[in-house]
Amino acid sequence: MTIQTVSTNKSHGGIQGVYKHASRETKTDMTFSVYVPPHPAGAKLPVVYYLSGLTCTHANVTEKGEYRDTCADLGLIFVAPDTSPRGEGVPGDPAGAYDFGLGAGFYVDATQEPFAQNYRMWSYVTQELPQLVAANFPVDPVRQSIMGHSMGGHGALTVALRHPNRYRAASAFAPIVAPSQVPWGTKALGGYLGDDRSAWRKHDTVALIEDGARFSDLLVDVGDADPFLAEQLRPELLQQACANAQIPLLLRRQEGYDHSYYFISTFMSDHLRWHAARLTA
Amino acid sequence: MTIQTVSTNKSHGGIQGVYKHASRETKTDMTFSVYVPPHPAGAKLPVVYYLSGLTCTHANVTEKGEYRDTCADLGLIFVAPDTSPRGEGVPGDPAGAYDFGLGAGFYVDATQEPFAQNYRMWSYVTQELPQLVAANFPVDPVRQSIMGHSMGGHGALTVALRHPNRYRAASAFAPIVAPSQVPWGTKALGGYLGDDRSAWRKHDTVALIEDGARFSDLLVDVGDADPFLAEQLRPELLQQACANAQIPLLLRRQEGYDHSYYFISTFMSDHLRWHAARLTA
Repeated sequence: MTIQTVSTNKSHGGIQGVYKHASRETKTDMTFSVYVPPHPAGAKLPVVYYLSGLTCTHANVTEKGEYRDTCADLGLIFVAPDTSPRGEGVPGDPAGAYDFGLGAGFYVDATQEPFAQNYRMWSYVTQELPQLVAANFPVDPVRQSIMGHSMGGHGALTVALRHPNRYRAASAFAPIVAPSQVPWGTKALGGYLGDDRSAWRKHDTVALIEDGARFSDLLVDVGDADPFLAEQLRPELLQQACANAQIPLLLRRQEGYDHSYYFISTFMSDHLRWHAARLTA
Repeated sequence: MTIQTVSTNKSHGGIQGVYKHASRETKTDMTFSVYVPPHPAGAKLPVVYYLSGLTCTHANVTEKGEYRDTCADLGLIFVAPDTSPRGEGVPGDPAGAYDFGLGAGFYVDATQEPFAQNYRMWSYVTQELPQLVAANFPVDPVRQSIMGHSMGGHGALTVALRHPNRYRAASAFAPIVAPSQVPWGTKALGGYLGDDRSAWRKHDTVALIEDGARFSDLLVDVGDADPFLAEQLRPELLQQACANAQIPLLLRRQEGYDHSYYFISTFMSDHLRWHAARLTA
């Protein structure tokens, strides 16, 4: 469980670090960022995991997410992993597309070759990374929560729904809520998990809820100028599933906002306050 | 005075835009960003100019500066130009160094060949850009102020000291306050203005103050872990010059902070509030 420090910078009173380690799950080096806010010596802090979207690394949210001010204010540790394994020998999309392979791990453990060896982002974000973070940072592992954007919103919601007692809060920006029903998702789930669609249901937020998964409550923001809204995100499917399952969902359609970090950063503080209220309750 | 829109994104209730125009000063296309906060129709808003440091374009502060939240709160327009002319035929550093030429215009009008034709960043930021902004955005041109980082801190302070009635506030993050006395500055001023050091004094904050320039008051933050502090920035020279000239200077040495946007973003809100207090007085 050793990690290597890539960089540390003081910011908003705390330390923004970037770290690297040899992952047992992906069999590659994995890079992630951790912000530790100012805190009393010896304190154990709640931790928020943030899962990024297609094409991103840890760096996008670290540079553009505007989370440090609020994390410092609320005393939250913020962890941002990469979105896929990377490096020599890691297979990518055969055609070099942006929506599969490198930068597009989709938070599943692949069962299909040639991806099964490295593409184990589900186990990475739910098991290896939390253990690594607990071993190296002042976290209270009982108080963790998860959020994400787009593909990472899909990751955050599926992780939370399958571990409702392990994560105290879950939220998403512009999530892919029904990957089995949209182009990004069918390509990814088919490629990583194969043609048997029954295997896809454990990685589909709407299907998980239909199959009985529950969570205390959810916060989701989408921009009504998001170019992916109607075809890839389809928040109305989540709204219907949550209504049927009586899961309290705060779904906000934000007027004029798109899919970018200009949107995410605008509502980041709201999301962190939602998480903090549940992490410190 | 026509500008071309490169991109617009809604953020923190306002619009973050990136624009391009053919500059009469630099004889090149110039790109700049403008954030317009939410405001009542017809309102004319105060405007803050932000000058960036070596190697930067408009994009660095636009993505990492964390200014939009506070600008939206205070009703400030925020303008970030590039740091030099760029493009085919624009001469750079003969050896390709980062600290001269492209990305390093130093906010002077070059008199030396081959730079005199394009390197006119002084006239660009003090004349052409404010006219362009006034013609295209809802600014109150009487209420403007200026800030910057490192080389851009040098730019902001020299611009303010030479136009104390045009800018209502001035501040800087880790500025180069005495370019005539430090390696970055002597290389740049020598290369753009020639060997006659008397021409340098109008582009040296400390020299300007020694020669009688005054400003109402100044805010400067430096990080005490900034690797450039002792050799390139030398804030003690500004402190002494301001003391001698009886210019109120709030110089804050921030413990543990470095030269990066992790530092700048931490104190951006403080600076904007300093500016707003003077812009709306």
